[in-house]
Order: sequence, then structure tokens, then C-alpha cells
Amino acid sequence: MFIAFEGIDGSGKSTQLNLLSRYLKSKGKKVLNIREPGGTILGEKIRNILLDNDLNINKRSELLLFLASRAQLVEEVIKPHLERGFFVLADRFSDSSIAYQGGARDIGVETVSTLNDFATDNIYPDIVFYIDIPTKIAMERLKEKNLDRLEKEGQIFLEKVRSTYLKLSELRDNFFIIDGTKSIDSVFAEIKSIVETHLQS
Amino acid sequence: MFIAFEGIDGSGKSTQLNLLSRYLKSKGKKVLNIREPGGTILGEKIRNILLDNDLNINKRSELLLFLASRAQLVEEVIKPHLERGFFVLADRFSDSSIAYQGGARDIGVETVSTLNDFATDNIYPDIVFYIDIPTKIAMERLKEKNLDRLEKEGQIFLEKVRSTYLKLSELRDNFFIIDGTKSIDSVFAEIKSIVETHLQS
Repeated sequence: MFIAFEGIDGSGKSTQLNLLSRYLKSKGKKVLNIREPGGTILGEKIRNILLDNDLNINKRSELLLFLASRAQLVEEVIKPHLERGFFVLADRFSDSSIAYQGGARDIGVETVSTLNDFATDNIYPDIVFYIDIPTKIAMERLKEKNLDRLEKEGQIFLEKVRSTYLKLSELRDNFFIIDGTKSIDSVFAEIKSIVETHLQS
Repeated sequence: MFIAFEGIDGSGKSTQLNLLSRYLKSKGKKVLNIREPGGTILGEKIRNILLDNDLNINKRSELLLFLASRAQLVEEVIKPHLERGFFVLADRFSDSSIAYQGGARDIGVETVSTLNDFATDNIYPDIVFYIDIPTKIAMERLKEKNLDRLEKEGQIFLEKVRSTYLKLSELRDNFFIIDGTKSIDSVFAEIKSIVETHLQS
């Protein structure tokens, strides 16, 4: 089973991914955590380029670099682990490109979806958890960090990201909006219950 | 005017590009020579990744990296120079992706064309010179070089590249097949004459 965690930075998605990973392992499952961009030697090289604040990168190149990293992750890591029965838990996947480059950078949801399908060889997560928080809270949580290229875009940019994520729920099955302003425990209880239901069906 | 030189390595396309560049400059034209992948800071970083023989890169990531480099070159270099009245002479452009990744790597001519249109923002050269040589001659000319990732693919791979290039001439206007087995001077005479005709019209 392939599960992706989506949301703006500061939403708590990485915390939730780690909780689910630990929980599944405690149940004796084989689990692999991955993150984007990165997760392969090629992907880490691309990650370094994307996080370099001094580099001039236009929006189409930015998207294509994320996709190049994703395509390698699919071939080298995701496909073989799914075939071997692993739970693959992804910190960001295709929908990040749709929300950030498609929505906030204005490339278009449809265009990015088409490009995603090419890059992922039409692989899409079985479940997507979108952890939703107001952008104001995200900005406050990020304040203490060194911000990267995308985090620096500010609150108006993040509003566009968030509204695109929220619209995605209308287009997809198995795309769950989780209220990320609740306590870590209560968010995790919701996620655990959805995964359990999915496993039983 | 935007002119691209295409062909398998060893075809003499770079030599011809330089001859045309010198000729146009001697006529008082503003000329810019570019090469792919590369030509921008981002592009050179991507070039280093693509030419690294030790790196595991699947065919979709390979294509997406070429496209990311191309998109940056279009935005940062090609568009502004064309607007300022330059002749832009490109050592490889979109059709290289179609021949190498679309044809020889089997991604498909149509799929790569669609991805090219996104990456280039629908910019296509006014003239493409495809310098054609038999792959056997190319292999002999390359023998003395340190071969990069694509050059190492060998003669069967190059045959697919060549046949895709040759098919492209049926799909395009202003795509000229030039016999690269002729002398450098006689190849250049043909190229010069086509450019002159194009300039007069």
C-alpha cells in the first residue's frame, strides 16, 4: 500500500508520517518512509539544486526537476518496494507539484497532472492525507527555521497552495482532508482509523 | 532568427554551427551560440548530472532533466536574445529529445513532443539543420573520444536515433537533411545557401 502525506510545511505531515510508520511496524508490517525531492542518489542531487536559494530557476524548470526526482524515486524505490509487499509512506508526492507549481505558480492543475502521469508512470497513492492548517499558523511555525526557496514565497503563495489542495479533494477518491490544528494524538487517531478501514476492505 | 543544428555526435554539426556563426558575424549580424544541455548556471549543473556515467538515471528522469535545462535556456537566454534581434544558433534543441529519448529510448515521438512544447513554452527553431551521417562513420569518428552516457549506447541505439531524425523531416517544415559525408566546405555551402534564401524571404 502506497500512502502520501501532503500539506504546506509546518502542517505536521512529517510527524504524522513517522507516527504511522512506527504504528505499522509495531503491527509487524514492512514499512518504507520516503521524502521528496530526494530518496535516490539522483534525487538528492536534484534536491540540492532545488533548495539552492542563489540559483535562478524558472517555474517550468522547477517543475521538471521535481518530476525528474520523482520519476527516479518511482523506478528505483517505490515500484520494487510495493512489489515486495512494503507499505510505502511518502512525505509529499504528485499532489505537491499540483498544489505548488500547478496552483500557486499558475502552471495549471491539468498541465501538471499530465506531466505527473508521465513522470510517475501512472502510479498514484492508494491514500493521500492532506493535513490542512491555516497559512497564518504555518507561517508562525516556520518562523524559527531557515526558509528554503518555496517557503520564502510567503503567505499569499501559501494561500494558493492551500486552496489548490482543498480543490483536489473534489477530484479524487481516497484524498482525505485532515484538520491539522487538532492535537497530534487526535490527528493521528483519525489517520489510523482511515488506514485500518482501508486495510480491512 | 533561431537556427538549430541536430545530428548524432560525430556528424560535424558543431563545426558547421561555428562556420555559420563566423559567417553571420562577418556580415555584421549579432550572433549567439548555445549548446544543450547547459548554457545557464542551472543548465550546467544539470549537464554534469547527465554526463555522469556512474549515476543511475532512468529514461523518464533523463528526459525530464534535458527538458529542465532547456526550459531555463529558453527563459534566460533564447527569448531575450531573439527579442534583441540576435541570431541564436543552437547545438541541439527539442529534436534531440525526440530522436534520443522519443525514438531510441522508446518513450515515443508524440509524448516527447508534448513535453517539449511545455518546456520550451512552444518556441521552435525557424530552421533545423539535421546533419546526417551513417552510424558506422559516427562510431569511427567517436572512437578516439572518452564516450559519455549516450555515446556509449552503441551503434544499434544510434541507428534508432538516426531513423527518428529522418522521420522528423516528414513532420516538419524548415527541417533540412544535410549530407554530412560531404566535405566541410560543401556542407557549409548548402547551409549558407538555405540561410540566405530564408533571410531574403
